[in-house]
Amino acid sequence: MNKSPLQIARYAYNPKLPQILREDLNKICASKGGATSAASDGEAISRLFPNTYGLPKVEFVKGENKKDEKTYNVGVILSGGQAPGGHNVICGLYDALKKANPANQLFGFCGGPSGILEDKFIILNDEIINEYRNTGGFDMIQSGRTKLETQEQFAVCSEVCKKHSINAIVIIGGDDSNTNAAVLAEYFKAKGENVCVVGCPKTIDGDLKNEFIETSFGFDTACKTYSELIGNIERDANSAQKYWHFIRLMGRSASHIALECAIQTQPNICIVGEEVEAKNQSLEDITNYIASVVAKRAENGNNFGVCLVPEGLIEFIPSVKVLISEINDLVAENEKEFGALATTASKIAYIESLLTTDSKRVFNSLPQAIEAQLLLDRDPHGNVQVSLIETEKLLIETVKAKLAAMKKEGKYCGKFATQNHFFGYEGRCAFPSNFDSDYCYSLGYNAFLLIRDNLTGYISSVRNLSAPADQWLAGGIPITMMMNMEQRHGEQKPVIKKALVELDGAPFKYFESKREIWAVDTCFTYPGAIQYFGPSEVCDRTTSTLALENAK
Amino acid sequence: MNKSPLQIARYAYNPKLPQILREDLNKICASKGGATSAASDGEAISRLFPNTYGLPKVEFVKGENKKDEKTYNVGVILSGGQAPGGHNVICGLYDALKKANPANQLFGFCGGPSGILEDKFIILNDEIINEYRNTGGFDMIQSGRTKLETQEQFAVCSEVCKKHSINAIVIIGGDDSNTNAAVLAEYFKAKGENVCVVGCPKTIDGDLKNEFIETSFGFDTACKTYSELIGNIERDANSAQKYWHFIRLMGRSASHIALECAIQTQPNICIVGEEVEAKNQSLEDITNYIASVVAKRAENGNNFGVCLVPEGLIEFIPSVKVLISEINDLVAENEKEFGALATTASKIAYIESLLTTDSKRVFNSLPQAIEAQLLLDRDPHGNVQVSLIETEKLLIETVKAKLAAMKKEGKYCGKFATQNHFFGYEGRCAFPSNFDSDYCYSLGYNAFLLIRDNLTGYISSVRNLSAPADQWLAGGIPITMMMNMEQRHGEQKPVIKKALVELDGAPFKYFESKREIWAVDTCFTYPGAIQYFGPSEVCDRTTSTLALENAK
Repeated sequence: MNKSPLQIARYAYNPKLPQILREDLNKICASKGGATSAASDGEAISRLFPNTYGLPKVEFVKGENKKDEKTYNVGVILSGGQAPGGHNVICGLYDALKKANPANQLFGFCGGPSGILEDKFIILNDEIINEYRNTGGFDMIQSGRTKLETQEQFAVCSEVCKKHSINAIVIIGGDDSNTNAAVLAEYFKAKGENVCVVGCPKTIDGDLKNEFIETSFGFDTACKTYSELIGNIERDANSAQKYWHFIRLMGRSASHIALECAIQTQPNICIVGEEVEAKNQSLEDITNYIASVVAKRAENGNNFGVCLVPEGLIEFIPSVKVLISEINDLVAENEKEFGALATTASKIAYIESLLTTDSKRVFNSLPQAIEAQLLLDRDPHGNVQVSLIETEKLLIETVKAKLAAMKKEGKYCGKFATQNHFFGYEGRCAFPSNFDSDYCYSLGYNAFLLIRDNLTGYISSVRNLSAPADQWLAGGIPITMMMNMEQRHGEQKPVIKKALVELDGAPFKYFESKREIWAVDTCFTYPGAIQYFGPSEVCDRTTSTLALENAK
Repeated sequence: MNKSPLQIARYAYNPKLPQILREDLNKICASKGGATSAASDGEAISRLFPNTYGLPKVEFVKGENKKDEKTYNVGVILSGGQAPGGHNVICGLYDALKKANPANQLFGFCGGPSGILEDKFIILNDEIINEYRNTGGFDMIQSGRTKLETQEQFAVCSEVCKKHSINAIVIIGGDDSNTNAAVLAEYFKAKGENVCVVGCPKTIDGDLKNEFIETSFGFDTACKTYSELIGNIERDANSAQKYWHFIRLMGRSASHIALECAIQTQPNICIVGEEVEAKNQSLEDITNYIASVVAKRAENGNNFGVCLVPEGLIEFIPSVKVLISEINDLVAENEKEFGALATTASKIAYIESLLTTDSKRVFNSLPQAIEAQLLLDRDPHGNVQVSLIETEKLLIETVKAKLAAMKKEGKYCGKFATQNHFFGYEGRCAFPSNFDSDYCYSLGYNAFLLIRDNLTGYISSVRNLSAPADQWLAGGIPITMMMNMEQRHGEQKPVIKKALVELDGAPFKYFESKREIWAVDTCFTYPGAIQYFGPSEVCDRTTSTLALENAK
């Protein structure tokens, strides 16, 4: 590997552990609470997880633990999209494992969950681990999007574990991967096979969180990277004073990233998908809102600004959601005819002719390029790829049209020149911030303690994250505790409840209380690049979302 | 202003000055060399600058200078696009000015050169200056793109200077702005008005450099910001191993930024516009080259990679350059008919029918979206806006087509999934790196010394930049020394010669010697975010371009 000076310097960083995890391993005990239940649909979930449902919450505390003579062979899997800090989870797990017994082994399954199915792994050793400490990316063992969910797959996992005497698996992933970790844990228990399965909460999107998982790792670093760029663009906007910048931000359906970045950078506008849905806003409503801010600023001579748009917005607009679902159905039902059409124009005309009146109106209100994106960019299941729709360009077009109309009515007299941006891949593999370096290392280290106490079906939980690291709490909670039943592909499935932005939560409330001032005045804040070595107030703070939520 | 923790922490940074500039002001003397000439066309230029041509180079050295009793009222102007460090030029100028005499005043003309024409300024004081130390952006007084070039404008400048007793103007700008600074200096000299005009070399594009100006300010910070993002994307590419990322980089016509970023991040492909032109490569040649790298990597199972594309590439492809020029002429000649066409398709058909056979062939080889961009996005002069052409998407399309053809011939058997990016505004207003903070502060401080010695028509020159700051050399050179005559808008004009990438220069030679390995192997390097507080090897290095050029 070719190493930048920063990468070399970051090797020297010692991630901070919670005080309890700094103890000798045999001085750490699991303190168990009472039986737990699910987030909801407890009965259904208890039926699906007869062996792992209702287990107690666990917190690690100081105490005498039995001298552990067992040898551990642990497999680790990175699942899904990259998030800064994934390497440190593995490093923390590795260090705890080797501290317990140098003979313990860590199998890194390559390329995500398919690694275990294909029995593709590397044995992680000091040489490999030390190359990846405090670095971004998942390149140590790569990730993948295969899902471990069928009984056949589980049987293969079981075989592979037997073959290598693997007695624990750590799955580092998002809500779906942790759901699957719970199902796999239940599978092993039901079969009477003693393979402990532990999950770790990963996703930059920030939508895997609840009372016990305060944040998923990577969210901090990704938001800081995007906020750096947004701040730089804000400063450019305020220097040149001639462009409105529309910036779309990654984050799947939830708007956590957009909201966090808004709080960090104080742009003029940030659309929050969850609010759009709750208020049943149409594309026209959103357009009118943006146009009104543009017009208000123009009155003060400010023909510039910054508007943040969450990636998932389009699906939160109820009328567009209906339109997308109709298009998905129409394309599926008329696959042959649709596929035979040669030009984009003919596809647009064909679909248009079949839409319901309401959806046709919505479809016709879209710029042609967006109509084309709705029809052309389809995922392997034939569905519209929402993440590829350039919503920021869509809004620029609709706002432009609205402003032109307002100009005719004498209600707007400014200039509206625009730039558009999309940030996603820029933040998923950044060097983890000090927070994510510490948090991830702790999650991995802690995962080994869960394994040692045979706490299968648990997710590694490190809490009290707004306090300095030594005051963090470490433990685990049963994954089933975070589940409810949801309709997926036509059937009821047990899944971890996705955490969307709560409109009565502290971060949104804070944003709501400020946005009118931010809209009209120029209150831009410029966070700058993530710093790893400077003053603590620059380097060691985490997200505003976490600070606001924990200040409750 | 709302201040981020980093912004507050950066206020405490003391920019490093060259040793000579740390002396008492009356211990610094100008050591003058022999008479100078122009870069070329000396005779023509000497005729145009009878009063300011041929002046000596100046270097500041230790010595007794006369006690300066004069009071200085200096006007400062930011001209053109933002570049990190602009504020520090003003801060350095301010500090030297106030050190010389607290009664001296600094007039910040607002909104660029139009500020002086409209007599719009603020008097800069400690309170304002201290808010902007070591920060990015030009928001202290804003910039603008008005050009100071007509006699009428100069007369207004003269009046404004008289009105406020301004006896010096510092113009912070790129090649055009410094050219205009020289013309303005000549104007004042010719009129016998004692207003000293000094330039400072600004541009992220890196194309204002020569023997005496080693680099323009902002290039370092902008390249580091882009390299941070490219590195993060490389790490993502190497983790997910499923996308080719095509990244277009700002930088106008020259490819300095793309080349510097390539050296910092070691991507699989970087196209250099100057090489394309020198080798008379066609779009097809470039496409074939990229496709051959994609195919070679696919042979090793690597269906991922990163390709850098300089913004100005399209104009360096000789056949496309001809096409663009034909389109510009056709649209101008047939303005009414062209403007009356309602749809993009009809505009495309109309222009197509009028193109020469060769250009028609090139035009038809472009994807429809690019054809539309060539016709629709026009600047106020009716010309194609080259910077808005999404060359990265163009190349994705042409490479995709080439790979499909190769697949049919059995010469390619991989997958080609892509992502595209454009980075520009993200880097122009970043917090200046330590290098740019130091360099800019020194340029501004040094500019005052040029003013004090009445060195009008000079550009502030700080050299030996690869060495630690205390070893830097400070002085000035006559702007006319960097000039040649060029055809502009149909007439011969004296201009500063734009520095394009030299194919026999050290940076390109280095890149050339490595690119074959970088293409096939994965040699990605991840620079990470700019650091301001860490170990010196992380925080105090400047660009590879500068290091390689100065190692000559």
